[in-house]
Amino acid sequence: MRSYLERCCKIVDAALDQYLPKATDRPATIHHAMRYSLFAGGKRLRPVLCLAAAEACGGEETAALPAAAAVECLHTYTLIHDDLPCMDDDDLRRGKPTCHVEFGEGIAVLTGDALLTIAFEILAKTPPSSRYGVADYVIELATASGSRHLIGGQVVDLEGEGLDVVISPAQLRYLHESKTAALLACSLRLGAMSAGASAEQVESLTTYGQAMGLAFQIIDDILDVTQTSEKLGKSAGKDEAAAKSTYPALFGLEESRQEADRLTKKAHMALEPLGDRALRLHQIADFLLVREY
Amino acid sequence: MRSYLERCCKIVDAALDQYLPKATDRPATIHHAMRYSLFAGGKRLRPVLCLAAAEACGGEETAALPAAAAVECLHTYTLIHDDLPCMDDDDLRRGKPTCHVEFGEGIAVLTGDALLTIAFEILAKTPPSSRYGVADYVIELATASGSRHLIGGQVVDLEGEGLDVVISPAQLRYLHESKTAALLACSLRLGAMSAGASAEQVESLTTYGQAMGLAFQIIDDILDVTQTSEKLGKSAGKDEAAAKSTYPALFGLEESRQEADRLTKKAHMALEPLGDRALRLHQIADFLLVREY
Repeated sequence: MRSYLERCCKIVDAALDQYLPKATDRPATIHHAMRYSLFAGGKRLRPVLCLAAAEACGGEETAALPAAAAVECLHTYTLIHDDLPCMDDDDLRRGKPTCHVEFGEGIAVLTGDALLTIAFEILAKTPPSSRYGVADYVIELATASGSRHLIGGQVVDLEGEGLDVVISPAQLRYLHESKTAALLACSLRLGAMSAGASAEQVESLTTYGQAMGLAFQIIDDILDVTQTSEKLGKSAGKDEAAAKSTYPALFGLEESRQEADRLTKKAHMALEPLGDRALRLHQIADFLLVREY
Repeated sequence: MRSYLERCCKIVDAALDQYLPKATDRPATIHHAMRYSLFAGGKRLRPVLCLAAAEACGGEETAALPAAAAVECLHTYTLIHDDLPCMDDDDLRRGKPTCHVEFGEGIAVLTGDALLTIAFEILAKTPPSSRYGVADYVIELATASGSRHLIGGQVVDLEGEGLDVVISPAQLRYLHESKTAALLACSLRLGAMSAGASAEQVESLTTYGQAMGLAFQIIDDILDVTQTSEKLGKSAGKDEAAAKSTYPALFGLEESRQEADRLTKKAHMALEPLGDRALRLHQIADFLLVREY
């Protein structure tokens, strides 16, 4: 599994390197900053899901590659903006100083903007499949990452911070669904769409993505409590310090682990209609459940 | 001319109202903030250019309308982010408190992000024309607004601020071309593309847009010196206070006016191959030259 992930990372990194302006292109600051944040050693989970979903639907890896690169640019922009002093105010990300610490706040805002913009430019290079075209791809990514989902989740998160109010399990689920699961599911859907998947296949992958995405976020919350900053590559204990509501805070560690298990089982079940070609997606769900960073 | 502009504004505002989530959609803060900045009484210059370019190439207004709405969303996002304390730090925009003054910095960053995202979502609704498809539209907008052009210009602007160095006329031209002319030309090109324009027609409109865009920015610089904040709806005298290089600062008011005149003549000439259908574009160039806000 680890060699599969490493292979995917290499392919995605090569594609990103090709799609992005060179670090020396003018103005050099922004292109340097875009590459600084993008090549900081992320897990490339979203692109891997995109490629694995294409494979699960019988598609070609090359057809899914632009979409895979696009979701990683989009994810990286959200990290840069979320880390800003006016948001979560974080100094450490992927084991390195955050973009605004390294380049200043103004450049960090613009670097996020540039990665969001280029995400759509790269996505538009995804070839149309038998059932979907570029308009579908763009609307899919814009919806998942827009004001009702990904950005909406960050808004709710920001508004809740420091309020000293314990949010309900339903609210926490909304937060995790919008901030994490929406883009994970979108990455899978884009991979499937690039493969010309049927509506049923896309639906199966959406269910898988939502369940796996929630499990992923619960594990993230658990690791924030149990791991060191060094291991995570970002500030540990941050959630508690910010009085953020998390699964462990609401339910305790043990029950949170059980919920992650339950959701991972649900994710496996959702893949059944896809048969053997979904092997990688099964492995990814298991891998995410036992990860330590 | 004024009635033409008013009619365009009405059509564009109705489209924006339809494309945007309702102000009450959850989370309400972000949707309220998106509408606050978008419906703050902008001139809608970019959408007007988009619609007029479509007309000049024999296209249908309805086909160009999504692209027209998209460029206005994109323009508004740049205003919100440029006004942030870590950028130009401006309190007044379109005669109202800026987004971050009204909603806080975090929400302002997210509101800009959401408008940038929805710009591509709306753009993707532009129907393919005889020569162009959604992939072309998306790459066109992403290029003009990306790290080499619009965002690149803001980077150079940000890096130059407070340096107390007089920039060269060539550098100032680069700034204006990337920060203003690129998106104006892009608005025209998108309108033309939605009308299935020939490569020659698109080229003519690009030349028109670049010349008119530079003239527009020179007039902007002049108005910043000669007009009150009340009339402009944004902080006047801001350029001088920030020690920004402008045309009047480098060349004086009189020579700046002459340069704007010269560029406007160039814009008119570029339209010649388009014939009578370009009437509105001729009128717009003249209107922008004599505007007082």
